[in-house]
Amino acid sequence: MLEPGATIGILGGGQLGRMIALAAARLGLKSHILCPEADSPAFQVAAGHICAAYDDAAALAELARVSDVVTYEFENVPLATAEFLSARVPVRPGARALALTQDRLAEKSFVRELGIETAPFVAVDDLAGLAAGIAAIGTPAVLKTRRFGYDGKGQVTLRAGDDLAAAWTAIGRQSAILEGFVSFRREVSVIGVRRADGAFAAYDVTENVHRNHILHTSTVPANLAAETEKAAHRIAWQIGRAMDYVGVFAVELFVAERGMSETVIVNEIAPRVHNSGHWTMDGAMTCQFEQHVRAIAGWPLGDTARLGPVEMLNLIGDDIADWQSHLADPAAHLHLYGKGEARPGRKMGHVNRMLDRIPQGC
Amino acid sequence: MLEPGATIGILGGGQLGRMIALAAARLGLKSHILCPEADSPAFQVAAGHICAAYDDAAALAELARVSDVVTYEFENVPLATAEFLSARVPVRPGARALALTQDRLAEKSFVRELGIETAPFVAVDDLAGLAAGIAAIGTPAVLKTRRFGYDGKGQVTLRAGDDLAAAWTAIGRQSAILEGFVSFRREVSVIGVRRADGAFAAYDVTENVHRNHILHTSTVPANLAAETEKAAHRIAWQIGRAMDYVGVFAVELFVAERGMSETVIVNEIAPRVHNSGHWTMDGAMTCQFEQHVRAIAGWPLGDTARLGPVEMLNLIGDDIADWQSHLADPAAHLHLYGKGEARPGRKMGHVNRMLDRIPQGC
Repeated sequence: MLEPGATIGILGGGQLGRMIALAAARLGLKSHILCPEADSPAFQVAAGHICAAYDDAAALAELARVSDVVTYEFENVPLATAEFLSARVPVRPGARALALTQDRLAEKSFVRELGIETAPFVAVDDLAGLAAGIAAIGTPAVLKTRRFGYDGKGQVTLRAGDDLAAAWTAIGRQSAILEGFVSFRREVSVIGVRRADGAFAAYDVTENVHRNHILHTSTVPANLAAETEKAAHRIAWQIGRAMDYVGVFAVELFVAERGMSETVIVNEIAPRVHNSGHWTMDGAMTCQFEQHVRAIAGWPLGDTARLGPVEMLNLIGDDIADWQSHLADPAAHLHLYGKGEARPGRKMGHVNRMLDRIPQGC
Repeated sequence: MLEPGATIGILGGGQLGRMIALAAARLGLKSHILCPEADSPAFQVAAGHICAAYDDAAALAELARVSDVVTYEFENVPLATAEFLSARVPVRPGARALALTQDRLAEKSFVRELGIETAPFVAVDDLAGLAAGIAAIGTPAVLKTRRFGYDGKGQVTLRAGDDLAAAWTAIGRQSAILEGFVSFRREVSVIGVRRADGAFAAYDVTENVHRNHILHTSTVPANLAAETEKAAHRIAWQIGRAMDYVGVFAVELFVAERGMSETVIVNEIAPRVHNSGHWTMDGAMTCQFEQHVRAIAGWPLGDTARLGPVEMLNLIGDDIADWQSHLADPAAHLHLYGKGEARPGRKMGHVNRMLDRIPQGC
């Protein structure tokens, strides 16, 4: 168990690392960030930082030396990095969560083996395999690299008659997974948190809308049947337990209609704090970042109770230009990430609007 | 008006500077702290810091160079420092608020000139003046240095028959103020915020309990008549306007019984964020630290609405040893300041307990 004053090492200096560091600071903990980019947003709020590559052994040894526990803000931490650190300092969540979630095929297989529904999928290792996959799954389908994809990168949608060779080339002729389309009513996610002793908690399910493969809004409560909400929580608990997970994680789900009832289908697991949990910063008793810190510190989990209905709006690229109108909205909490340039697709900040605080008649 | 990415210079690196820096970071602003102590808590969460004395001209020039606005966490900033900075960068709140509140006699006179009630007081410049003051005001009375007092330092209580020469020596034979005792029912405070254009907002009045001259608990709502709450807000508005104030400030008040009704008497003005406003971090739509940042940045003020009843408990010295029980309380938000040693009387953190979230029957 960490004592107040201890140091959390964080791999990754983006907005997630920054918000973990801010939560840690509220609890009297220090953060030390390792990130290769010199202008990393998390550097601005951390007690210390190391600007180095994730495979720089001297830098990693230094991070391990100054840290009482190490965590990460992104799932593509090289496994060798996690193992190098694990030999020197507790790394939470551990290498197993990384290994599973870095590989879309391993992740989907893991979920299916738990008896949880996923989209139909097949492994694709060459062009012939792709053709066989299309024959098995049909179209439309999505061809995705097994590794290093996020926000829609490294994937190609295939429709009837599409050129399979071109798609295979487009994703770089690397090990891939072909996934069938799921006809879903809505996209939701559940943010879970788990301690090393198995204690588990989850937040209310969030309903998500994506634009250009990037999260646009998250709204709680989701428009779901109570049993569906319960099923989503159970899935998160199962996945957390099977990964022997420590910390906060997200499970992205599709909600599909099956006759008269709803069913949930796991789309993706993120072994980290998650954009769809940002509403908890203003809308829950304990925010996801504090929860993550509590879990990796070996501290009691906080209350996940929701304080009201909330809509989280991402500020992507030029959306940041609206910062003044958000700031003037008494129902809104504005969060900006301290990033310099508003490049297209770049997450610059987010707004949590408390839907029960919007004046009637507006 | 500051733009996102701008830098706030902060004089003072204690918990108040730290919490201002954390609020600024949430809004995408950077902080640069100037403080003479190498282990200042605010250094841990700021983009930059300067470890130097408050009268170090080169250090002040550097702070002015990197800052878009400068603020402070304590009222005893040397006036020469404020003036040196003001010549180079906007300093908010300004030198006038410092001049008034650094001098207990000037402050009390200022309040009285606004037609607002204070305790009876007289200026004391020598032992004969002290004797004359006691004759005028009676005992018990409190002899306080005019300058540099806080948390009960620099003051002596005088009762009938006490040795006046000893008291005069105890406070260092310096310019002083003798204040009569006020028989009060309760101590309260109001946290106000004002923009340069005169826009003003205040939080619900907080009821405060001190122990050994240090704030122990603050509770909202205060147990007050509605008119008393309104009177306290009006006093804060008057004081803010008369000081041409920019930022957050606190007015400490005594509530006394006058026949059937309550009256409020100003005890002290603090030209800064204030310990009795820490409940706003979890109990109000906008916390006092964000409000201060908004006001000094020239941004719209946030909503001061209270979210529920709250009790703020200070963790002083060894109180910090209870951190685990606070962390395990689902109704509590724990805030720790990252200070190393728990010296007696040292503010180590605070806890905001949401009184409507405490389970029934406990």
